[in-house]
Amino acid sequence: MDNTPVHPAPSAPAAGGTTAVGRRRLLTGGALTLGGALAGAGIGAAAADGSGQAATAGEARRRETAYGTQKVPFHGRHQAGIATPAQAHAVFLGFELADRTDRAALGRMMRLLTDDAARLTQGEAALADTEAELAALPARLTVTFGFGPGLFEAAGLDDQRPASLAPLPRFPIDRLQDRWNGGDLLIQICADDPLSVAHAQRMLTKDARTFARLRWAQRGFRRGRGVQDEGATQHNLMGQLDGTANPAPGGDAFAKAVWTDAGPRWLRDGGTTLVLRRIRMELETWDAADTKAKEFTIGRRLGTGAPLTGTAETDPPDFDAKDALGFPVISEFAHIRRAHVGEERQHIFRRPYNYDDAPAADGRPDTGLLFASFQRDIGEQFLPIQRRLAASDLLNQWTTPIGSAVFAIPPGCAPGGWIGQTLLG
Amino acid sequence: MDNTPVHPAPSAPAAGGTTAVGRRRLLTGGALTLGGALAGAGIGAAAADGSGQAATAGEARRRETAYGTQKVPFHGRHQAGIATPAQAHAVFLGFELADRTDRAALGRMMRLLTDDAARLTQGEAALADTEAELAALPARLTVTFGFGPGLFEAAGLDDQRPASLAPLPRFPIDRLQDRWNGGDLLIQICADDPLSVAHAQRMLTKDARTFARLRWAQRGFRRGRGVQDEGATQHNLMGQLDGTANPAPGGDAFAKAVWTDAGPRWLRDGGTTLVLRRIRMELETWDAADTKAKEFTIGRRLGTGAPLTGTAETDPPDFDAKDALGFPVISEFAHIRRAHVGEERQHIFRRPYNYDDAPAADGRPDTGLLFASFQRDIGEQFLPIQRRLAASDLLNQWTTPIGSAVFAIPPGCAPGGWIGQTLLG
Repeated sequence: MDNTPVHPAPSAPAAGGTTAVGRRRLLTGGALTLGGALAGAGIGAAAADGSGQAATAGEARRRETAYGTQKVPFHGRHQAGIATPAQAHAVFLGFELADRTDRAALGRMMRLLTDDAARLTQGEAALADTEAELAALPARLTVTFGFGPGLFEAAGLDDQRPASLAPLPRFPIDRLQDRWNGGDLLIQICADDPLSVAHAQRMLTKDARTFARLRWAQRGFRRGRGVQDEGATQHNLMGQLDGTANPAPGGDAFAKAVWTDAGPRWLRDGGTTLVLRRIRMELETWDAADTKAKEFTIGRRLGTGAPLTGTAETDPPDFDAKDALGFPVISEFAHIRRAHVGEERQHIFRRPYNYDDAPAADGRPDTGLLFASFQRDIGEQFLPIQRRLAASDLLNQWTTPIGSAVFAIPPGCAPGGWIGQTLLG
Repeated sequence: MDNTPVHPAPSAPAAGGTTAVGRRRLLTGGALTLGGALAGAGIGAAAADGSGQAATAGEARRRETAYGTQKVPFHGRHQAGIATPAQAHAVFLGFELADRTDRAALGRMMRLLTDDAARLTQGEAALADTEAELAALPARLTVTFGFGPGLFEAAGLDDQRPASLAPLPRFPIDRLQDRWNGGDLLIQICADDPLSVAHAQRMLTKDARTFARLRWAQRGFRRGRGVQDEGATQHNLMGQLDGTANPAPGGDAFAKAVWTDAGPRWLRDGGTTLVLRRIRMELETWDAADTKAKEFTIGRRLGTGAPLTGTAETDPPDFDAKDALGFPVISEFAHIRRAHVGEERQHIFRRPYNYDDAPAADGRPDTGLLFASFQRDIGEQFLPIQRRLAASDLLNQWTTPIGSAVFAIPPGCAPGGWIGQTLLG
């Protein structure tokens, strides 16, 4: 594959009478912002498809218009799939290690899985790929690995476990189902194409199974690529604009909040942690609430996402504002007040996906959010927010956590290296 | 919503330095072909989002670049979602009628569901929509209704049932599971955005449940919109290019094969039939076969999709060609020979989706094809092909039908009418 990133000068003429900027903007719905967000890492839209065949004019045009060949670099200081603008599709796979999987075996496993991921994300077949044809269109495929608490124990490296990397305390609002809890190894697979996700899942699951059994697979989605502007906040399945207060990937505030800078040496300078919660939406009762009640619960307008004290989505909420009767405009128990974090360094970075599995026979939906948050430290950042929410968030009436898992996300690696090497190597 | 289709003259200048043609091609990856396929029905990319707010320059540009507002007309001689170029995402919902649902109730149900579908597909909230915000971006949403054999019985209209609309005979290759079989009412929901599909599913399921219970929900996907050229044949999860021999929607051959022109009057002039089979792929053993064996099985190259007697995907297979030893180059038992249909009128039109549900703990995938074929008449067209395949298709070794359902697909309706009116009204 030709791995050359396409970064034409803004004024460079391009085929079809479009300017390069026009084309890039059209193709990626905000690619320039995206490029900035990746802090120069860039996304390469390959100019050749690796088939080795001479391209006809029609084929050349087709490749220009299709984003299937776009790649997110695999190697780097951080793993991809964190600061990467969220792709349309994701699957989170949680594995339980086999009894025989010790530190040496974990090293073999991570070498193998790293090699698979490095190839698949760059549009190349995995070494043992049995459907090589399906690897050709990665569509911004990323593969991100995480280590659950049990992996440290299996490796005999419990002293290297970040102090707050442990199953979350049970909150009164939780109705956890064991089938969605825990996991020793996480593989998060994201791409703008569900076929690309499915193929990577198949290859990685096959190579993992010598070492581990699959505990859960959670498939999620966001808006299809290009449905709306890539930078725009998206609605979740409750109709909320979700993610307004999220730090912008690539920015300074993001870096301070996300990349671990304390604790075990192996995780610092590039690593982070992930909290994954499966949160069921109680749509049957939520649907019975009127718009006013919903907006009171959230503290924002459903349509615009503006705080009740403002008019635009990005207006900062005024938590001190009072109504004519002297009551707070944004309730003491509104979701945005309970979730609000003042200090930038204490923010969490959410990268959530919707889930929508088959409804029950009576039509009750199995719908919700794969809440995924990255933060330096679970104990310092996630837990205080979660405690405030669990205590008195009005939204709790309509959302139920049914799964919970935590992972350390190792730093990225350079070519020739492997993910987890600083811990297991 | 502004429902004006965007059909600028090819030479019209447009914003951002792009030509209108350039932009449309870029946006839709083959929109011009698409327009042709829809035979002038057109797809409208709305210029306003219905929020009633003044658009900033940035917002205007954003709407130009996003396809979320694109609509497929709901009303017409045929239901949408058949000749419509296949969207990226689909769910097939099979309902069982409640005992009390008689002909009059069916009429009420279809009026309600038609109204929901007519609104949602045009980017408007359903009348009882509880997440109205989610209706704004239909992304080529289509809703297609079908009537299973049981519906005719419930309506006391068994004499109006097409003669061959009956559960398919059990084939020796079948391993049918009752949870995927049958159904009195089908709702097929397709869109390029999974959120749009999820919202429509929620609204339609809520309104159907007074009359019916959900028997099964089958979620499927194709390549993400824009991953590859819209007209290009896609790989399925076995790595085959699937659909090369399909009649082109909108063409004469398509019309002759798909639209029912005999049998009960109510179905003629606009109706068709659907066979939906859930076909599990036995990827574990398929993966153990080498490329040569796979290509021998299918009769085509995996990479290019070319028949073994040709070099390009669209080369017609030469079923008479012999190798040096005098054996047929394309085996007597190869899939493309067994599936081959000579006469255009006897073709079926396949509109399949991939499925990929959670793998088992040991990694065995739950993967396959939601085989959906539209044809004038099941008995005349689908059954002969299926009998040939069941008897001796090499591919049977690696594919297992586990679900089976058949539906009559009523004609479309005009504004003010409702789907099924010619039968139930």
